[in-house]
Amino acid sequence: MKMSELSSLAEVPVATIKFYLREGLLQAGVASSPNQASYDEEHVRRLRLIRALLDVGGLSVASARGVIDSIYSDATLAETFEIAQNTVSEALDAEQLDPSALQRIDTLVSDWAYQPTNPGRLAAGRVLSTFEAVGQRDDRGWFARYKTAALLAAEADLDEIETRQSRESQAETVVVGTVLGDALFAALRRIAQEHVTHQRYSPEGTV
Amino acid sequence: MKMSELSSLAEVPVATIKFYLREGLLQAGVASSPNQASYDEEHVRRLRLIRALLDVGGLSVASARGVIDSIYSDATLAETFEIAQNTVSEALDAEQLDPSALQRIDTLVSDWAYQPTNPGRLAAGRVLSTFEAVGQRDDRGWFARYKTAALLAAEADLDEIETRQSRESQAETVVVGTVLGDALFAALRRIAQEHVTHQRYSPEGTV
Repeated sequence: MKMSELSSLAEVPVATIKFYLREGLLQAGVASSPNQASYDEEHVRRLRLIRALLDVGGLSVASARGVIDSIYSDATLAETFEIAQNTVSEALDAEQLDPSALQRIDTLVSDWAYQPTNPGRLAAGRVLSTFEAVGQRDDRGWFARYKTAALLAAEADLDEIETRQSRESQAETVVVGTVLGDALFAALRRIAQEHVTHQRYSPEGTV
Repeated sequence: MKMSELSSLAEVPVATIKFYLREGLLQAGVASSPNQASYDEEHVRRLRLIRALLDVGGLSVASARGVIDSIYSDATLAETFEIAQNTVSEALDAEQLDPSALQRIDTLVSDWAYQPTNPGRLAAGRVLSTFEAVGQRDDRGWFARYKTAALLAAEADLDEIETRQSRESQAETVVVGTVLGDALFAALRRIAQEHVTHQRYSPEGTV
């Protein structure tokens, strides 16, 4: 199909498609004449992935290019996870974090296998420091219960990935799941918070 | 204490403290002379909360002021949740979302009590549309398993809030938990993903 058709099918303006081509986010079409290229279903699919990464994931163009490249490389599943996680997570410097908070995170998840460079480890350490800096104490197991919830989600992530047939579509699911999973959990937690508050404080009232 | 002492105790530069005072994020000190004010522990505490909202929560100054105001108002717990959730969540327009995706989210959580305006409902609808737009299908219950994880977290949130004595400290925990909970779950899920991947694909290898 022509670029104009690609544009209406994927609901992305032509100027934006040209920008993605220039930035290396979208693969080039097949040249059908010196001034025209032809696009196919794979371009529609890729455009939708780009929009998901930029709009819902909030990634920069450079970050989106990084994760897309990881899908079409020969990275292993663990490597693709690492790239996706590092891209989506804010880069934190371990040196800037409270060592005691990191140590307590390591204790919390001491039954899990992970590298000390896992971006989640640093981010969790920062959450713990911040939590305590604002005068909160984790004496009722709030962190431990989030750990249980996180493991449920990660098991669901891996099960989902395993249903995909090719390495490429597995890698795509890693990327999509990493980006959308945070948003999905945050969204459902907000609904659940309203539900549980309602349940506990106005069980007989109307919603 | 003087502003200089507040600055070193809270590890926030004097210029930044003055900015927060001007922006109404930090309550004024008690005037001890025409050119000097005196600050106390409450100011240290508030400064730490401001930093948590801006740095870890990524809120704008205006948003941080909104949630702080909700803590020191006479809003109910449900109202404080609503303010915190709306502040932390991206504002989405229901009209712009796919009605069928929203309907399926409503079906997914049909056993929960919530308003149609809950920001999580709209965000979850957008995640579902995006998920499908990139060619994924939820045929193995990925969304349902995230629902289970979200309910666990929300129950933990409410239990945590109930340990606080005063309305004000409950409201503070609502705000802190809403902002930090997303970050905590995202962080722990990254560690769990590495753990589960390791467990399934290299159980006998070294971490």
